[in-house]
Amino acid sequence: MSIQSVAIIGLGLLGGSIGLAIAEHAPDIATKGYDADADVRKKAAARGLVQEVCDSAEAAVANADLVILCVPVGAMAGAASAFADALPDGAIVSDVGSSKQSVIDDLAAVLPGRTVIPAHPVAGTEQSGPEAGFPSLFENRWCILTPPAGADQTAVDALSAFWERLGARIEIMDAEHHDLVLAVTSHIPHLIAYTIVGTASDLEDVTRSEVIKYSAGGFRDFTRIAASDPTMWRDVFLHNKSAVLEMLGRFTEDLTALQRAIRSGDGETLHELFSRTRAIRRGIIEEGQDDAAPDFGREH
Amino acid sequence: MSIQSVAIIGLGLLGGSIGLAIAEHAPDIATKGYDADADVRKKAAARGLVQEVCDSAEAAVANADLVILCVPVGAMAGAASAFADALPDGAIVSDVGSSKQSVIDDLAAVLPGRTVIPAHPVAGTEQSGPEAGFPSLFENRWCILTPPAGADQTAVDALSAFWERLGARIEIMDAEHHDLVLAVTSHIPHLIAYTIVGTASDLEDVTRSEVIKYSAGGFRDFTRIAASDPTMWRDVFLHNKSAVLEMLGRFTEDLTALQRAIRSGDGETLHELFSRTRAIRRGIIEEGQDDAAPDFGREH
Repeated sequence: MSIQSVAIIGLGLLGGSIGLAIAEHAPDIATKGYDADADVRKKAAARGLVQEVCDSAEAAVANADLVILCVPVGAMAGAASAFADALPDGAIVSDVGSSKQSVIDDLAAVLPGRTVIPAHPVAGTEQSGPEAGFPSLFENRWCILTPPAGADQTAVDALSAFWERLGARIEIMDAEHHDLVLAVTSHIPHLIAYTIVGTASDLEDVTRSEVIKYSAGGFRDFTRIAASDPTMWRDVFLHNKSAVLEMLGRFTEDLTALQRAIRSGDGETLHELFSRTRAIRRGIIEEGQDDAAPDFGREH
Repeated sequence: MSIQSVAIIGLGLLGGSIGLAIAEHAPDIATKGYDADADVRKKAAARGLVQEVCDSAEAAVANADLVILCVPVGAMAGAASAFADALPDGAIVSDVGSSKQSVIDDLAAVLPGRTVIPAHPVAGTEQSGPEAGFPSLFENRWCILTPPAGADQTAVDALSAFWERLGARIEIMDAEHHDLVLAVTSHIPHLIAYTIVGTASDLEDVTRSEVIKYSAGGFRDFTRIAASDPTMWRDVFLHNKSAVLEMLGRFTEDLTALQRAIRSGDGETLHELFSRTRAIRRGIIEEGQDDAAPDFGREH
């Protein structure tokens, strides 16, 4: 089985990037798309994110081998319901959501008996909407597939091959483990970033202008991911609740231990941790998951 | 009064960048330097970070109008003691430390009666050592001066003019307020980053390899500042203890409120905060304190 025709439901950063990546890396694949927002459909058509922007989800999926849901995880069930009756036999339904157990449950409920292979390309920027996508978003990034128990291996292989054509590397994982791993590598970092940016903007003894002026001390890094799409992230936290709360508990314990070390003047504990954390950065650079240039290669 | 001759004590990222920035932007100023580490002195000489690398702090300061201490804040008193007897009359002593009240106290104790004008250029990268510096580090960054009560205005003006020549913008602030502002824009962000990177590397149910592979979900941003110099940062937390603990308390309160919102499924609270935090990012970009390019302009 090979993918000949893809329907993209949701034409924001991820959906748009998939359409553009197909056009660049797999131009033999036909693309149709739909977005519930008429303004997004118009912009998507103007940018050519897919070959055909349809006026309904049903029209978009009509001849698709693969339907990819690119909507917030809280909107998956509704978006899938909208095209359920028009879904061709044998079509694979997948997604790009950041939580996977909830997507498996939600799609199984509204698409009973259909081939659902959830996926999560671990890629993105802080921008969102139909103007934000670009074709190289997935290059050298990992795409995690979380096929449910008993999933059709042919479909898993076809979906893997599809993502590899867009430049991604594939990992297969069960949904529960995915949700735990991403809680620590993505969800908690976003939650912390949103929190500190909120804390800083609510202060009375430090002005917002001061926070902005002196943000180069480290704070500005956090503002980038705290500028990410609010609806997408609200849904992630509500739909990966137990793993997020578990990891947040561990983070808070560790932070409390450091707080105590600062209070008691225990420099050794601080220095030991601060030395150890450098190794992870080196690993990330060696694995090609970030740039080795200082300061993310920012212009100086 | 204008600065003709600068002595740089400590030839790491900051000290080296000052030397290189003088060579580029103010080549009429003579530069000497010293570092307690012989290997650093050798590398500093090889890179030409200053015109003359001296074998003692006393030799470095012998003819200086301005001495800049570029050592961890916990090492200020010791470094200043080493040249106190050789300091020319009328020379300004300054520094680049990230906490200012402790520096004022420490330098007042070992340099009684001398002109001490502490400063903090809010600039840096995660790299350190004599190889890390570059001449444009201070361009369009703020340099905060915290002159003690009754400081000589001529000296403050001369130091301001010096930093402006290196491309920095000047702000005058009292040390206590500086320490509070920087706690939130720099110290807490670093503490949080070190913590989450530590939490992630200590997990048993998620492997280090998984943390590295899926770091593009947000985590990798935190690893950059968690790769910063351990000694420098240990000293910051020990020397700005009360402001750090105060701001950490506020951050923890806010994080606890979000934790509760997640647990109770309160999407409105999450969405409201996640929308509000975008404004700060826009302000930072408008003020030229970060790049508008998505994902820090990383290559895709």
